[in-house]
Parts: sequence; C-alpha cells; structure tokens
Amino acid sequence: MTDAQSGHHQPVDGAQVPRYAGVATFMRLPFVPSAQGLDIALYGIPWDGGTTNRAGARHGPREVRNQSSLMRRVHHVSKIEPFNLANIADVGDLSVNPIDLQDGLARIEAGIAEIVAAGAIPLGIGGDHLTTLPALRAVAKHRPVGLIHFDAHSDTNDTYFGDNRYTHGTPFRRAIEEGLLDPKRTIQIGIRGSIYDPGEHDWARAQGIRVLYMEEFVARSATDVMAEARRIVGDGPTYVSFDIDCIDPSMAPGTGTPEIGGFTTREAQAMVRLLEGVDIVGADVVEVAPPFDIGGLTALTGATMAFELLCVIAHGLARSRQA
Amino acid sequence: MTDAQSGHHQPVDGAQVPRYAGVATFMRLPFVPSAQGLDIALYGIPWDGGTTNRAGARHGPREVRNQSSLMRRVHHVSKIEPFNLANIADVGDLSVNPIDLQDGLARIEAGIAEIVAAGAIPLGIGGDHLTTLPALRAVAKHRPVGLIHFDAHSDTNDTYFGDNRYTHGTPFRRAIEEGLLDPKRTIQIGIRGSIYDPGEHDWARAQGIRVLYMEEFVARSATDVMAEARRIVGDGPTYVSFDIDCIDPSMAPGTGTPEIGGFTTREAQAMVRLLEGVDIVGADVVEVAPPFDIGGLTALTGATMAFELLCVIAHGLARSRQA
Amino acid sequence: MTDAQSGHHQPVDGAQVPRYAGVATFMRLPFVPSAQGLDIALYGIPWDGGTTNRAGARHGPREVRNQSSLMRRVHHVSKIEPFNLANIADVGDLSVNPIDLQDGLARIEAGIAEIVAAGAIPLGIGGDHLTTLPALRAVAKHRPVGLIHFDAHSDTNDTYFGDNRYTHGTPFRRAIEEGLLDPKRTIQIGIRGSIYDPGEHDWARAQGIRVLYMEEFVARSATDVMAEARRIVGDGPTYVSFDIDCIDPSMAPGTGTPEIGGFTTREAQAMVRLLEGVDIVGADVVEVAPPFDIGGLTALTGATMAFELLCVIAHGLARSRQA
Amino acid sequence: MTDAQSGHHQPVDGAQVPRYAGVATFMRLPFVPSAQGLDIALYGIPWDGGTTNRAGARHGPREVRNQSSLMRRVHHVSKIEPFNLANIADVGDLSVNPIDLQDGLARIEAGIAEIVAAGAIPLGIGGDHLTTLPALRAVAKHRPVGLIHFDAHSDTNDTYFGDNRYTHGTPFRRAIEEGLLDPKRTIQIGIRGSIYDPGEHDWARAQGIRVLYMEEFVARSATDVMAEARRIVGDGPTYVSFDIDCIDPSMAPGTGTPEIGGFTTREAQAMVRLLEGVDIVGADVVEVAPPFDIGGLTALTGATMAFELLCVIAHGLARSRQA
Amino acid sequence: MTDAQSGHHQPVDGAQVPRYAGVATFMRLPFVPSAQGLDIALYGIPWDGGTTNRAGARHGPREVRNQSSLMRRVHHVSKIEPFNLANIADVGDLSVNPIDLQDGLARIEAGIAEIVAAGAIPLGIGGDHLTTLPALRAVAKHRPVGLIHFDAHSDTNDTYFGDNRYTHGTPFRRAIEEGLLDPKRTIQIGIRGSIYDPGEHDWARAQGIRVLYMEEFVARSATDVMAEARRIVGDGPTYVSFDIDCIDPSMAPGTGTPEIGGFTTREAQAMVRLLEGVDIVGADVVEVAPPFDIGGLTALTGATMAFELLCVIAHGLARSRQA
Amino acid sequence: MTDAQSGHHQPVDGAQVPRYAGVATFMRLPFVPSAQGLDIALYGIPWDGGTTNRAGARHGPREVRNQSSLMRRVHHVSKIEPFNLANIADVGDLSVNPIDLQDGLARIEAGIAEIVAAGAIPLGIGGDHLTTLPALRAVAKHRPVGLIHFDAHSDTNDTYFGDNRYTHGTPFRRAIEEGLLDPKRTIQIGIRGSIYDPGEHDWARAQGIRVLYMEEFVARSATDVMAEARRIVGDGPTYVSFDIDCIDPSMAPGTGTPEIGGFTTREAQAMVRLLEGVDIVGADVVEVAPPFDIGGLTALTGATMAFELLCVIAHGLARSRQA
Repeated sequence: MTDAQSGHHQPVDGAQVPRYAGVATFMRLPFVPSAQGLDIALYGIPWDGGTTNRAGARHGPREVRNQSSLMRRVHHVSKIEPFNLANIADVGDLSVNPIDLQDGLARIEAGIAEIVAAGAIPLGIGGDHLTTLPALRAVAKHRPVGLIHFDAHSDTNDTYFGDNRYTHGTPFRRAIEEGLLDPKRTIQIGIRGSIYDPGEHDWARAQGIRVLYMEEFVARSATDVMAEARRIVGDGPTYVSFDIDCIDPSMAPGTGTPEIGGFTTREAQAMVRLLEGVDIVGADVVEVAPPFDIGGLTALTGATMAFELLCVIAHGLARSRQA
Repeated sequence: MTDAQSGHHQPVDGAQVPRYAGVATFMRLPFVPSAQGLDIALYGIPWDGGTTNRAGARHGPREVRNQSSLMRRVHHVSKIEPFNLANIADVGDLSVNPIDLQDGLARIEAGIAEIVAAGAIPLGIGGDHLTTLPALRAVAKHRPVGLIHFDAHSDTNDTYFGDNRYTHGTPFRRAIEEGLLDPKRTIQIGIRGSIYDPGEHDWARAQGIRVLYMEEFVARSATDVMAEARRIVGDGPTYVSFDIDCIDPSMAPGTGTPEIGGFTTREAQAMVRLLEGVDIVGADVVEVAPPFDIGGLTALTGATMAFELLCVIAHGLARSRQA
Repeated sequence: MTDAQSGHHQPVDGAQVPRYAGVATFMRLPFVPSAQGLDIALYGIPWDGGTTNRAGARHGPREVRNQSSLMRRVHHVSKIEPFNLANIADVGDLSVNPIDLQDGLARIEAGIAEIVAAGAIPLGIGGDHLTTLPALRAVAKHRPVGLIHFDAHSDTNDTYFGDNRYTHGTPFRRAIEEGLLDPKRTIQIGIRGSIYDPGEHDWARAQGIRVLYMEEFVARSATDVMAEARRIVGDGPTYVSFDIDCIDPSMAPGTGTPEIGGFTTREAQAMVRLLEGVDIVGADVVEVAPPFDIGGLTALTGATMAFELLCVIAHGLARSRQA
Repeated sequence: MTDAQSGHHQPVDGAQVPRYAGVATFMRLPFVPSAQGLDIALYGIPWDGGTTNRAGARHGPREVRNQSSLMRRVHHVSKIEPFNLANIADVGDLSVNPIDLQDGLARIEAGIAEIVAAGAIPLGIGGDHLTTLPALRAVAKHRPVGLIHFDAHSDTNDTYFGDNRYTHGTPFRRAIEEGLLDPKRTIQIGIRGSIYDPGEHDWARAQGIRVLYMEEFVARSATDVMAEARRIVGDGPTYVSFDIDCIDPSMAPGTGTPEIGGFTTREAQAMVRLLEGVDIVGADVVEVAPPFDIGGLTALTGATMAFELLCVIAHGLARSRQA
Repeated sequence: MTDAQSGHHQPVDGAQVPRYAGVATFMRLPFVPSAQGLDIALYGIPWDGGTTNRAGARHGPREVRNQSSLMRRVHHVSKIEPFNLANIADVGDLSVNPIDLQDGLARIEAGIAEIVAAGAIPLGIGGDHLTTLPALRAVAKHRPVGLIHFDAHSDTNDTYFGDNRYTHGTPFRRAIEEGLLDPKRTIQIGIRGSIYDPGEHDWARAQGIRVLYMEEFVARSATDVMAEARRIVGDGPTYVSFDIDCIDPSMAPGTGTPEIGGFTTREAQAMVRLLEGVDIVGADVVEVAPPFDIGGLTALTGATMAFELLCVIAHGLARSRQA
Repeated sequence: MTDAQSGHHQPVDGAQVPRYAGVATFMRLPFVPSAQGLDIALYGIPWDGGTTNRAGARHGPREVRNQSSLMRRVHHVSKIEPFNLANIADVGDLSVNPIDLQDGLARIEAGIAEIVAAGAIPLGIGGDHLTTLPALRAVAKHRPVGLIHFDAHSDTNDTYFGDNRYTHGTPFRRAIEEGLLDPKRTIQIGIRGSIYDPGEHDWARAQGIRVLYMEEFVARSATDVMAEARRIVGDGPTYVSFDIDCIDPSMAPGTGTPEIGGFTTREAQAMVRLLEGVDIVGADVVEVAPPFDIGGLTALTGATMAFELLCVIAHGLARSRQA
C-alpha cells in the first residue's frame, strides 16, 4: 500500500487485514526489489557464517519478518509515525553464501553498498554479528563512523581456532584495523559474562573504545548512560548495532551465546529512544537465532527493537530535512 | 473438602495429596454445579470468539485450572486465608458458542448473571477480553461500575475488519456506550506498544478514562500508581480486569497480542495487593492462550494472579461483613 | 523469476539462494497480486472461523509458505516439472474476517471466484475445512462437481451448539444441500476415530457418498482404493480436498482434531500420485494448525502434499491442452 | 449427565459443549467419588515411584484426562457404545505416596481393591508399570489371572541398584512369585530393544510366559498374533496391561524408556480390537510420562487406547450378562 | 588440560575447541575419578527421590554440564580466575538409588564425605533439595555449620503424606534436629509464594533462623541484605545452598515448584558476589529439573550461578592460604 | 569399566547406575584419549560447515551421546554382544574448525586417519554429510572402497552458490573424483523428495552407482533390497553411511533437509541387520541436528542405529578373526 499524499509505502493495516494474514514482510511493508526511492531500507542478512558457537542466525530475517507483523504504525510514547516521515520498504534478503565466508562477506557488503548508493539508510536484520563488518565497509567507505553498540560481548577478539580472523567475535577489531570505525567515538553497552582472559577488553580500551559493563549500567541509569553515549558519538555519522544477546536470555533466548543477567526489554527500549538526535547512518539488529528461540519471543523482541530504531532514524531524517 | 467449623469449601491439601493428583479444578477446590451458597464463584470462560489476532484463550480455563494446583491456602505476605474468610468453589465453565459471536456473548452473560443472582462475586478466568463485556452486563445491570484495568492495550477501539463492533479490542468502548462503565471511575494501567493512530487513546481520554502508560508506571511506582487508582474508583462498586498481556511476554508468553516491555510479576503482584479496600464486585483474568504458552508459565502466572485477586476480594468481603 | 522460454514464473533456486533466504512464498514462487495469466493459482486462506475445537488453522498459510521453501522443481518419481508445464504463482492470502463467520465465507468465495474467473485452477492452503464450502461455491457455480476427499472425518454433520449450520464439521452436507457437490461422484477416504452416533455416516451414505474407512484402506491398498476413487469421479470435473488430519498425528500433529491410526505420508503421497487422469478443477490442503504443530512437521507435510497435488494438476492441464 | 433410560453416566457431548470446555475428566464422564453402582471404573494412578530411568508418569492421569476429551461416544468400526452397554465413570485418582514406595503400593492396592469390591472392573491410567503389581494384588486376590501384556520390555527382571526388588522393571516377576499371575496364561507382545543380558528373557520363558518379539509380530500379523494371545489366555479371567512404550516413540514419545521400532497405533488398535471375547477382569494403560511428551500426542494415544479397551470390556460385560 | 605452572586442571578453551564439542563436563574441566589433590570438587547428584511435586531434578547434572560449556575462565567483574587460584575438576556423579530413599541418602552422604575427606570443598549440582541434607551430614559431621540459603521456600516443614519426614520440603528441619545446622547462623533469602499455614515459618523463626521474604528484599537491596547475611553467618564455617527456584520462573522455568515473583538473575549474581569473605565449606545448586526446562535456560542459569559460587569459593581459598 | 576376562571396555550398567547418571559418553563407554588398542572407535564430528540449508548437526555428537545412554549391552534379536566381541570406546570428538571449511575437512581427515592408523574401525557420529568425504579420504587412502549409503538424497551434486564444490550435497561426487569410492560398488537406498533437475541422478548412474528410490524399496522389501546391496558391494572393503534423513521426519525430525515419506525405524533396523557379512571398514551416522530435534527423538534414533551398526561391525570383526 502507498499513502496517497506522501507516496510513501505503508504497512498493511491490522484492523483491516488480520496480522497473521499475507506474505510476511518486515513490518508488513511492501516488498520492493530495489532501494531506489527509499529513505530507509529494511533488509535481511540470512547468514551466520561467522558463528563460533551455536549457529542459527541465518534464520533470523524470516522469523523477524514473521513477528514484525505485530508492529503497528505509530510509536505510543514519542508519537513518531515512521512510515509518514520517511519512505520505507522491505528490500528482501541480501545475497549470501553459507559455504564460503569471504564470498559471503563480499556479497553482503555489495548488497548494503547498493542500498547506500541509492541514498537509503540501511537497517539490517541479521544474521550473526560478523555481518556488521561488511555493513561498516559499505557505510564507512569514505570516512570512519562512530558506533553505539549494545551487546553482552565486546566482539573485539583477534583470532579463533588458530588464526581465523573473521568470526562474530572479531568484527569490531577488524573494523578498527580497516579504518571503518573511530574507536574514540565508539561505546559498547551491556558487556557481561565470563571472559577468556583478564585483559580481554584491554585492546578495545587502548583503542579508545568505551566499554560499559552491565554492572555499571545497573548502578547508573539508562538516561545517564545514554547521555554519555550521545556525548561520545557527538554529531558525527554513527552506526548503531544492536546484538539481541544484550537482552536477558529470558526475554531473548534465541541467540547463539546467551549470558544471563542482561538488559530487560524496558531498559533496551528506553536506551534506543534516547538515541534521538544521533546522526544514524546505518543500524542493525543481529544474532536472532530462531532454532534456539522459544515461541517467537526473541524474534518479537528483535522486531520491536527494529521498530524502535526505525522510529528514531525516521525522526532524525525528518528533522535533518527541516534543518 | 469442607471445613468443619465454617462449612466452607476447602482446597485439597498438597501435603496430603500430591499437587499433580486428582481432577484439576481451580485452586483444587471442589467443583460445584451452582453458585448458590458461595461468596465467591470461580468460573472459566472457554471462549475466544472476539480475538482479532492469535486465538487460543478458549483453552485458558483448563490450563489455569491445571497450574492452579500449585496454589496453597494462605497468602504469605498478607496472611489472608481466603478459603476461611469466604465460601469459594469452582462452578465450572460457562456455556459458550465458538461459532456464533452474539450467541456466545449471550450465553456468557447469562452464566455470570446466574452467579450474581446467587449472591456470589464472580471471579472469571478467560477467555479473551471481549468476555469482560458480558461480565459487565451481568454485574453492572443496575448501575455503572468503576474499573481498574491492567492491560497492554486500551481495548477501546471502535470497529475492526469493516464494521465489526464486537472484538477483544472494543469491549470497554461498548461498555461505556451501554452505560455499564463509569469512565470517570475507570483507570487503565500498563498501556504500551505501537498503536494504529496517534489519536488512538483520545476517545478513551475524552470519556474521562485515565490511561496510564507503562512508561509512567516505571517513572513512578506501584504504590503511587495504585494510590491514584484507588482514588479514581473511590468507594463505589468496581470491577477489576486483569489482561495477562499486561505482564511482560517473558513471564506470560502465552497470549494473543504480546508486547515487550511489560510488568514484571513482582510489580503486578504488588499492584493487586494494593487493591485492598476497593469494593470489588467482579473480576477476571483474561487472554491466557495456552497454545502459545511455554511450559505452563502463563497459566501459572494467571493462576497466581487469580489467587492474589481472590485474597483481596475475600478479605474485602470479610471486612464489609464485620462493618 | 521467470523462465525465458515459457514465460512461466519459476521458483527461486535453492542451489543459488539458500532455502531459508528471502520473503517466504508458496514454493518460493513470485508473489503476484492477481491470478490473471496464471494456469494455477496458489493462495492462502488464513481463517478458522468454522472450528469447533482447537483453532489455529488461520496461521496455516504462513507456515506452509515457510516450509514450502524445501520444495524443489521436479517430482522425483513422475519427473513432472509443474513450473514448466503451467504458469503458477502465489497470489497471496484471501481477504478474510476472523470475527464474522458469514462475512468471512463471503470474502473467501469472492476471492476464489476471482481466481476462477481469471481462468486459473485454484489450489488453496487452509484454513479450516469450512473454507472448502466457499471454494465449492466458486468452482461449482455452474454445475455440481465430484469430490475426492481425504480426511479422518466425514464433515457431513448437520448442526453444532444448538443450530449452528456452518462449522468445519458440516461443509459437505451444506455443499450437497446447495447443489455444489454430486454426492454420487464423491468419495471420502481415511475416515476413522470415535463418532457421536452409530448412524453418523448414514446421511452421507444415503446421499450416495462413498465413505471409505481407514480400516478398509489398510485391508486393500492405495492402488486399489484409488482405482475405485477414479471410477467414482469418472471424467467429470472434480475437486480434491486434502484435510491434513487424514495423516497420522505423528506425522501431522499440528491440527485441531487429531485421530490416531492415520495414513502415513507414504500412503498419502501414493494416493495423490494416483489422481493422475482426474479432471481436477480445484483443490485444497486444509486444517494445518501451526500453534499445535511440532517443529514445522505438519506444515512440511502440508507443503509437500500441495506440491504433489500441484504436479498432478499441472500434468493434467498439459495433457488436456495437448488433447 | 445420565442417560434417562439406562441410568448410565454419559459423557458431555462435544457437539453441544466444545471439547476443550469444562473440568477435564476421563472421556468427559462425570467424576464420582465411589465405584459403587459402576460396571467399569476409570481411575488414575499418579505415581511413578518404581521408575528406574526418566520419571514423569505421575503426571499421566491428568494429561490423559485432558486429551480424552477428544473421545466421542461410539466406536466407528465395531459400533460399540460403551456408555450405553455399561455404567462407567471417572472415580478420580487413587491415593498415592511419592516418597514411600511400599506405602505407595499399599495405597494403590487398597484403592483398586475398593473398586473390585464394588463390583466394577478397574480400568486404570498410570503411573509407571510397577502400579500393575498392586492392581494384580487387588484383582487376583482369590485366584491367579492370565495376562495379555503389550510392551517393549518384559518387566520380569529381578533386582535393580543392588537389591531393590520393586521397580517398573520387575512387576511381573513379583506377580508370578506372589501367585497372582498364571505364567502359562501370559503373553508379552512387542518386546524389543537392546537387553542387559543374552539370557534376560530366559526366566520368563522358563515360567511359561510367551515372549513375542516385535520382529515376530512384523513377520506375522495382528490377526495371527492375537489369535495366539486369545488361545493362551483362554476362557479364564485375564488382565490386560498396555504399556504405552510398546507404541513407536514417534507416536508415543512421552514415556520413560522409549525404544525405536515400535508398534504403529494402527497395529495397536487392531490388536486391542481383537481382544473381543477375552474375559477381562482389569486393565491399564501405563507409562504415559507427560514431561517427555510432545504436543499431547502420547496422552492422546493413551486416551484412545483406553477408549479401545473400554469398548471391548463394555461389550464383553454386555455379552456375559446376556449369557 | 593442566596448567604448566600451577599443575591445576584447566577447562578446554572455547577459542580453540568450539564450546559444543567434546564430552560435556562441568565447566569443560577434566573428569577425574577422585577428589584427591583437588581444592574444589564439582560433582553431580542425579537424584530427586525427595520430590513431592514434579520430579526431574535427577536430570539436572547432565544438563548443567551441557550448558556449563558456555562458561569461560575469568569473572568479568571481580577478575577472579578460579582455575588458577584452585585445583578444580569434575569428579562425576555420586552414586544414587532412585528407588530407595534412605539408601539414596546414604550413598550421597558417602560420596560427599569422600570428597571432604580428600580435603576438597564440595560444590554439588543437584538433584532435589533433600540432597542438601546428606551434604550437611558430610560437611558438618564434626560441628554445626552456618547456612546462607537462597530459595522460594523455607524447606523446614515437618512431614508429608502422613508421616514422611524426608522430602525436599524438610531438609533444614532435619538438619537442625540432627545438629548439623546452627539455626542462629542461618538465613533464608527470597522466600515467597502461598503457604500451607499462617504459622508455617514460625518453627524456623523459633529456632533462630532469619527468614527473609522476597518483599523485604525488594524494599531493601542486594547489598543491604547480603551485609545482614554475612553478619549472621560471621566467620564460622558456612554452607551455601542455592535453590534455582529462588530465581523467577521466567529465568528458571525448569524446576519442580515454581513461584512467580522471584529474583532476577542480576539480583542473584549480585548476591552471590557479595558472599566474598564468607568461609564457605560447601555449596550446592539444586532443583534444576530439565524435563520442565525451556531451551536449556534453567540449566544455563544454574551453570552460571555455579560459576559465580566457584569464583567466590576459589578466591576465599586463595585468601585463606595467604593468611 | 573393563571386563576382567577380555580386557575390553564395558559400558556402565543401567541396572546399577541409572541411565541418566554420569558424564555422557557414547553407549556409556569409557572416554579414552586415543584409539590405540581399540577394535572399534566411536567418535564425534561436531561440524556442519558443509550445510547448505539448516545447520545444527554440529551439536549431533553431544546429543547422540546423551541419548545413547539408553543402549544396553546385547542385541535382542541377533544376541550379538558387541562389547564382548570387540574392544570399543568413545575417543571423543575430532578437532574441527567451524569457520574455515578446508581446515575443518583437513582436521577431520587427520582425526580419522589416526584412528585408522591405530588399527581401529572408525564409527563416526556426525556432523553433516560432508564429513563423510574426509572419512573416506582416511579409510580409502590406499584403495577405493564400496559404499552402502542410506539417505533421502544422493549427495552427488556438483556445485552450490556459484562454484562451491564442497557441501553436504556433493561429498560422493568428490569422493568418486578423488578415487576414494568405487561407484560400481556403491548403492544409495531411500532416495526421495523433489529434485532440482530431471537429470539430477544421471551423473551418479552414469558412474555406475545404484540409485534406489524409496518407492522401489516400498514395492520390494528390506530383505530383497539388502540382498542386492550385499551383491553390489561384494566381499570388498565397504563403508556404510547412514544419513538420518533417510528415516521419516516423524521419527527423525531433527535434521537439516527433511523429506516426508521416509523409512520407518523398523525398516532401517531391518536393513542394517542385513549388513551382516559385509566387510565394513568404516561407518557413520550423520545429519542429526539437535536444534531441530523434538524431545531427543532423532538423537535416540541415531544412537540406536549406531548401536545396530556397532553390532554388525563387531560381529564381522569376530568372525574375520576366527577365519
């Protein structure tokens, strides 16, 4: 459906067509083959080739599409109407390769680069966290970006299983090495769980990354922490990466590397709403692994967090147009 | 079993008969065919004919009965002993019709009217939220009642799928139109989730309903919010409707329209305990949908919230008798 | 995708794009908004308004779409290539109404009538078995059709819950009363399970319907039984209705009214392959109820049976064109 | 409900009251506190104190009650109407003790003895297989009985975990030692799975028990095997014990000691129907363990097999009355 | 693996060998047949013979082993490296008897006594809570110990099912009667849920046990409550018993007697970290019942809490060696 | 445990130690670090790097170990006692690499080569079917072997996703190209399901492979088909590869590419027993994918089929020693 006035794509209305009806697309938006003409492109990355533990995030896009049918048109707190503020659609899943890691990364980068070239902001649904590396290659091609990173894990390790440098535990180390991320404009929020080595986060800190443990978040508050996050990324272009395992496994069990003691969804929603004002040039929700999910709960959480992100991105776009 | 002194029905004792043994009734109380002689009647409404999205609440009563075997006799905080304070039993499930919506509503109203006519306070286990409409028709036949409504959704929409006026998204609009509810003595607590329209709650507010979003609850406290709720309903007769989807889907996944970011059970228990002093003329726990439940968790939550309600109702009855 | 030579829609190739990737449509075919130009239209009926017991078939189309990603292009035994023989696509879900039964039936009939008017053979994925009634109204508008009906239940009861004449237990009685079905060209295969009344199938038999119990099937063979079925329907136009509950609940647990002792999938596949030569004017696979499914098994079975049906329909079309 | 003419208890009619409605009793029959006046008493044994591996059969009666709501009044093949032929009710669960094995056995024996004393045939729903020992103590108090025993395991071992003589692997050895069973009138059908010792079944055979492996059943047929079974038990009083693990784990996964390669439900139904003419003095369906069940499938199978048994028992009763 | 310098057993490294690979042992430590030479012995107690409601904790050790593969080597907050500070291994499961309760208790006591005799601190993974009684018999043989007890239930009842004195609802009453526990050095934290009798906790309080309800915890804080706990147990030898049902059932559903309104894992982790400085002579994590678990969540929570306990125990050991 | 007389490793006895107790190893055998001294080595391959669709077989070994606790010591039909006939143990999981496909294949080959070098017959538990390629590289290093291959799929495709030559759909093509398999001594049994191309199996047939469809099996019998299989492989060295997806998905749902209409376990057991006399030089059970399994059923089926294979291998070994 398309809105008569704005020409924007509109989601199917759940008060007219039941939410469980129809081909499942992200937020019940039209599926369009290209990002041309879009302000924000929703896309899936059905790939978990970088996963060192339990795979399954390859099935994430399909189940997030399924659960995203529960989203409606308006944010109940901010009253943001993303589909009015911006032209948004589901551009489908990126081309991937489940067998060849480097080819997989190249295909993903190419897919996102196409979205960026079309002038749309990419909002991806993973896929494992290694998919954020090709996303950064696409959006940070011309200058490094800042990063607000919600996660239980820092994902700045160096190698696995000998000398494998590309896994979902290493994307941000590689991104810094490749000059895609400005570590001084990077904050990781929600880090927790036992670690391999006492100095495991030293490299990240040495680069200038702000590593904020769950325990510090609990002692402070979402408002306080997000004020710091906004201060760190400042006005520059910023990527937002939301690893679903930052959420507590009772609320997001369907993920490969769960760690108890995570964020509640209320806390996560509060934080994403406080991204208001950040210049978001791309974002993703990753590590939703449906084979380990229970009753679609993780996919629902992922879909809702994507909607929260969509609202702040659309609002930011509208505001920057007015400016 | 019956208590020798009071003549009150008593639940089967879990220290004598294992909790998993025996025919499952609400709280392991006797099943009695009529509400005659009861102070409080527990009943089921196996009906979800008003459901616009995922059905399944028709199976709610059976699974809540099953999980309610875990309830014991005494509230550990208030020390209320409901089965001593009041004569309580399971009067079975109301007659329903899964195929004909209006006949279904009529049967449900008739069933509850019979309980009311017998002088018992009806405490129903749903069933979807449209079942609260016939409940209000039965308890508010002679004068409008106040309402304390725990829910993620306001349920005051007008129509669905064209011009369908009776769905689980419309009961409270219909109840106000029918003069069953006093909107100025009505509060809705826990409202959240994306909405169809920016003005979606305007009609409710225009009637005088107090719509209290989850975000306001988080900023205040259970004590503060419930003080307001008690102030709003005052001394008048009040219905309490507890939609299980007010609870977070991690704690109550088995429901048709889950919204992340909900109440914890600790918050919900705290709120219900603070109903102490309200003149409750009827209550229900609705939208428990076992086909979407996980390990009986939602049914357990529903059963426990029904026990919490039972305690405050029984205590209120005892107090009003003394007065 | 479209085949260059035939202009026919083609499914996405699983050897190029992983089966779990992309928006899920039936058999990975393109989603097209209209049946114009199609030979066979695959559509979903997300509706279970006629269900007297456990609902959930409303979710059938979405999950069958999901599991149908496992289908490939060619039948391994018959070597039929349906997508080459006929132009086939997913035309989406029909408009439904979960709240109003008669409006629901009217919308479904209108949707299928549109497909028939476009000259395509309708192959529907239910939905509950009452949806076959509007399907017959659409395909048998001008003359009664024969029926090959795979089911555990005869579905020729008269009324439920008083005088409700339209439920998933009554469609074929209504269809005969409405002159849509020729009972003498009707066979029901796989009937089993306890019954309400010793004379429960007498009405059907009195009309001329051949009611073939599971026990008779076991004593004979698929070949023998299907020879009789083909003899009964003869050369005339025939509808094929496949209720997934004909399959044993170990292989198709996700259904509303399971009966143990059902067909194996091997038996069901053998029977459908023996439909070769029948003039099929419409078909459906109904009663897949995902909320009761386990690991997608029932949806996979439903998808595969739909593929089997698709092969015999496409082959019949090609043959009749040659003739 | 009670039939006006016969005075027999009748199940709730699923065409008037949906099958999921109401307090769950066996076959939707009335729950009556005593077996007085009954011809056949259905009862539960919520006890698995004899289980050596995975416990859970204590939850069997409740879930079999739940799933037995799907049973209707008439057997579709034999046309037997058990509730017309005999007065049947659910007498609830026997008193048990989950903590003390010998006290548990004593309570179970006392409960069944009461049923027998009331003149009713006991048809029990387990519970683990050790519960058949107290059942035999009750029904075979005055003379040994024959046994038709469907099972994957012979359950004639001697001791476990040192010198524990009472487990679900030993009941029939104990029963023979106690003179309750006539081993020469005993047949075990469906035995399979790896064994502890090459001579594991030698003791049973030495007593005269006919141990019939699954492989022999496959090579012969249900008709042939059951002719032998009827020949073995002859005209004398016979107990029928149906361990759900005789069924294949795909059709009855919810059991403590699954063995692949089991009976299909079609085979099991065929065999039970061929019990016609046997003088059944008691029967049980045991080892349904809901915590390991999937979607209620095992409980449904157990409930249906109990219905099959009920039909042959009721028919036998009616016939013997006529004689 | 063994550390070259310390000679301590080391867990398999997840960055070299994937976490899902290899035979599952606690924390991926070597399995060693004896506790000789160990500082801390991890062991399983596959026994739930004292369970009055839903059994299944017998399967706890195996699933906690499975999920404990997710633990790494270092605590991210305290930076404690337990495997460097102490020599730790998995000594396997204790000998048990699922059929004979008293023999079961004797075997468990013998197994733990052996560990204690070897000079290792026992850290057990249950098993139901009655297993803590033989543990106390082993560790408190020579003098009563203090107890920090995290639980929803006080477990100080007297008898069940007549006069059964040994169940998972009675261990701490028995332990006090046997002189194993110093009730004045005992605190129970997290008690909640409906109770049998208004005076249910009076006996415990009369002995001097500090019974701290969940509601008091919510009103205070982990820091405050644990300061009191440390004050109560003082410098003396103390056992720590962690019943997984103290955690909310959304985060630990796999347990026999769930009570809503429990601790979050963040609260539980905070409390265990505040055990620092307590002289822990033994500890356990009990009542993980995998048949009721969902997606391994409870086992993961149990494994992580065991790791948290391991860290404080190992650190305490190292500190006391230095002293 | 070790047998006193033979010195052979023995499984833990389920009549002394409950089956759910202890660290889970294959068949409850000792875990030994090396294959030295073994006749048959059971090992796991926790790797699914070749999977083109749903991954998860990496978790196969752990869950097959878990369910294999249900195996006892003696085959009930053949009376083979494998642990007496041969020295057998669990040598753990092979080293793998989930991130690098070629390194993964190299590690797997090295692991199996070590077993072969030690003089033991390798019996592997997968892992996806690409793992059979390195197994063949190890066992067929010096001469091509014959193959009896149970599977729904031929796995002789050429490339995927462009030019990827190594996937679980290509191992037998690669093996023939590498000279590891003698295609004329190769038979594939159970092939079924829709195919990519009408000529999909032409290449295999052109090499001389006997491709036997499920439909042919149904028309013939296990005895007849296996006589042909034994004729085809003759006296030469033969590998047996058992892909769990040859079994029907109702009995083995936990696999990546399910196809309905598969073998029953009874048929599969019958076929494996008829391998008696074949010179088996290696074997595997692959594609057990626990994340898609239901209640451990697939793992139980895999474990039992491994036990069946173990019996025929051990018996063959004993016979060849006598010869």
